[in-house]
Amino acid sequence: MQLLISNIRQLVTVRSGGKPFKAGREMRDIGVLENASVLIENGVITWIGNASDFMNTLQPDADTLDGSSYVALPGFVDAHTHALFGGSRENEFALRSEGKTYQDIAAQGGGILSTVNATRAATKRELKKATSKRLDAMMKHGTTTVEIKSGYGLSEESEIKMLEAITELADEHLISIRSTFLGAHALPPEFKDRRAEYIDLLCNRMMPYVAKRRLAQFCDVFCEVGYFSVEESRKILEQARTHGLALKLHADEFNSIGGTTLAAQLQVASVDHLEHISEDSIAGLRRGKTVAVLLPGVSFFLRNPYAPARKLIDAGVPVAIASDFNPGSCMSFSMPLMMTIACTQMSVTPEEAITASTLNGAAAMGVSDQVGSIEVGKRADIVLYDIPHYRYLAYHFGTNLAAKIIKNGTILEFP
Amino acid sequence: MQLLISNIRQLVTVRSGGKPFKAGREMRDIGVLENASVLIENGVITWIGNASDFMNTLQPDADTLDGSSYVALPGFVDAHTHALFGGSRENEFALRSEGKTYQDIAAQGGGILSTVNATRAATKRELKKATSKRLDAMMKHGTTTVEIKSGYGLSEESEIKMLEAITELADEHLISIRSTFLGAHALPPEFKDRRAEYIDLLCNRMMPYVAKRRLAQFCDVFCEVGYFSVEESRKILEQARTHGLALKLHADEFNSIGGTTLAAQLQVASVDHLEHISEDSIAGLRRGKTVAVLLPGVSFFLRNPYAPARKLIDAGVPVAIASDFNPGSCMSFSMPLMMTIACTQMSVTPEEAITASTLNGAAAMGVSDQVGSIEVGKRADIVLYDIPHYRYLAYHFGTNLAAKIIKNGTILEFP
Repeated sequence: MQLLISNIRQLVTVRSGGKPFKAGREMRDIGVLENASVLIENGVITWIGNASDFMNTLQPDADTLDGSSYVALPGFVDAHTHALFGGSRENEFALRSEGKTYQDIAAQGGGILSTVNATRAATKRELKKATSKRLDAMMKHGTTTVEIKSGYGLSEESEIKMLEAITELADEHLISIRSTFLGAHALPPEFKDRRAEYIDLLCNRMMPYVAKRRLAQFCDVFCEVGYFSVEESRKILEQARTHGLALKLHADEFNSIGGTTLAAQLQVASVDHLEHISEDSIAGLRRGKTVAVLLPGVSFFLRNPYAPARKLIDAGVPVAIASDFNPGSCMSFSMPLMMTIACTQMSVTPEEAITASTLNGAAAMGVSDQVGSIEVGKRADIVLYDIPHYRYLAYHFGTNLAAKIIKNGTILEFP
Repeated sequence: MQLLISNIRQLVTVRSGGKPFKAGREMRDIGVLENASVLIENGVITWIGNASDFMNTLQPDADTLDGSSYVALPGFVDAHTHALFGGSRENEFALRSEGKTYQDIAAQGGGILSTVNATRAATKRELKKATSKRLDAMMKHGTTTVEIKSGYGLSEESEIKMLEAITELADEHLISIRSTFLGAHALPPEFKDRRAEYIDLLCNRMMPYVAKRRLAQFCDVFCEVGYFSVEESRKILEQARTHGLALKLHADEFNSIGGTTLAAQLQVASVDHLEHISEDSIAGLRRGKTVAVLLPGVSFFLRNPYAPARKLIDAGVPVAIASDFNPGSCMSFSMPLMMTIACTQMSVTPEEAITASTLNGAAAMGVSDQVGSIEVGKRADIVLYDIPHYRYLAYHFGTNLAAKIIKNGTILEFP
């Protein structure tokens, strides 16, 4: 089956020529082509060039789409979400507007544990149903690949329930999903005085099961004061690696306790948050293969400092932007809005924000050989926007500009 | 013609009982009713109560809408926009991400004057067409009443062209529009060394014509260093008052030069921006009828300080929130996102943000006797949201949660 998108006003390829990501200064190079056409065959991009290049090979029953009024970008690759959750936390949002901090609220029994209670109480079917609706909305806003973490179960039963739900959604939903085991998201209240026991449960019971049943591709830890220490994080991640899981780490969100240094040592796929990363830690990421995943929406939502995106990019670190969609610290899945926040609050250029939200997000998820750019051989996950210039995407904020979503080469229809 | 919206999950009335606005501490009182029903007759709200209250009076051909899965709010009243403009300024957006300020860019020939050039070059028909599309989008996002300013013409011909376009849109478009003459938005380049002449042109030629042809209901001035001084602003506004125009003022945006004091002296309908308002000026607004219109999107977009919303509200000043939708300093018309920015960055509570975006916006536009709350006798401009609680509106940001827009008692259908 062929689909030709012809004469695209601006085709933002984010081409990398086979490299897994763009480091620092390369991030501005987003490979814009004017009036280019893209041929898709069986869901894969097979040609990019002038429409006349394809005319010979076009099958009689090929679909064609006039791209002349659109700007095309790779579908967003949202490399950090907690999109599967029970309950909601709009009351904490109201409390924060009155001056309470995220940490105040957590100390009073809100925060992650409030979502843990609601997620434990929900059935797998309920969680899948609510999340499926969210994934529909994410696709409508241009996201075609998403990472989803467990971590609101914090018990063997509930973590497995979450990961099964994510894995089943990965099979059933059109969006592409990678699953991350985040049993080390917080210490469950049942293990309040038994940290070592919970870590033992994670490493020696849950992790082997998760790995064996392929319920996750990644293991992640929330390395933070009041959550998991650097040494605990190291232990968990090293164990995960022996089980064949790829690694991620939440680091330097509220305090700089050495998480990013650990991430660099372990050469994890991504180290996420970095609002309080030190200069030394930035240097430590400079030459590795670890992607720094920044979460502008969290700083915005919690009115916290922003990660030093400019310093990271200027130091040559490959930077991704993700939504961190979750009910507590960022109740938004809008990748264009994350780009706007990055451009306006973090001195990220519109071009860098595009690379960060596509190719580098894919690298953080280990799928940049398949998605994240519009290049021959990659999966045809392409979004067409009804805008005059790609810069509108971050500039014209607070509304959904996506006009057509092409997933695996198929133009989606939304009700 | 009757329409019954029955058993609304949460009906946020923002009722004021005939008062034109809610001052300061009253702003949290948004009058939420659970499972209430609203009867609309010929576009006007005639009953609010239990569905059974209406059954006797319901005509056989009345329309009914089951509200049980919705939260209902008054349509947003966006009291400060420059929604009619030519061109766009995404390149300035990119320059700002690289560290240039709004003032740097204006000094280099960008800024307002860049939009002036594009607006002068456009025909009235082109301006109307582009703006009509924007107004459609605003309605889809829950805005049912909007103020639109001139001020990108800055010549007799082009200012009149803008005001005619706005006035014609007010007749032709379903959204309710109030028009503001902002000839004093910037000094046009042609009058560079002839300030007094331009002010004379404004006051003695353009203003009488605008008033006579009823092309505007308000007159506004950008009182700011590099734009119009306090004395110039006073002169223009006093002259406007003699022509029967109501008054507004842009004040304290980048510098505190006394604009808000002038606004309080003249008892203008609204004083807008206030990012740099002084403590004294806050006190001056305390007991007047002037609404303080805050523009959270501008501070966000330009990475500038936010107006001291908390101090204004705590001082008892009636505060409104508006989008300031315009191509330079806030390329967004999303009122829910303005609420989110106000809650997260300005310590405004979700309840205050709702009052600010509805009733108090209507007061800033002089239409709070007709719209801005869901009360008997008011126009049926009601928006139904597919959310479990009204707090979701600011909490779940970056996506459009409006499910049904009821304008003048009619449920709108969007293509």
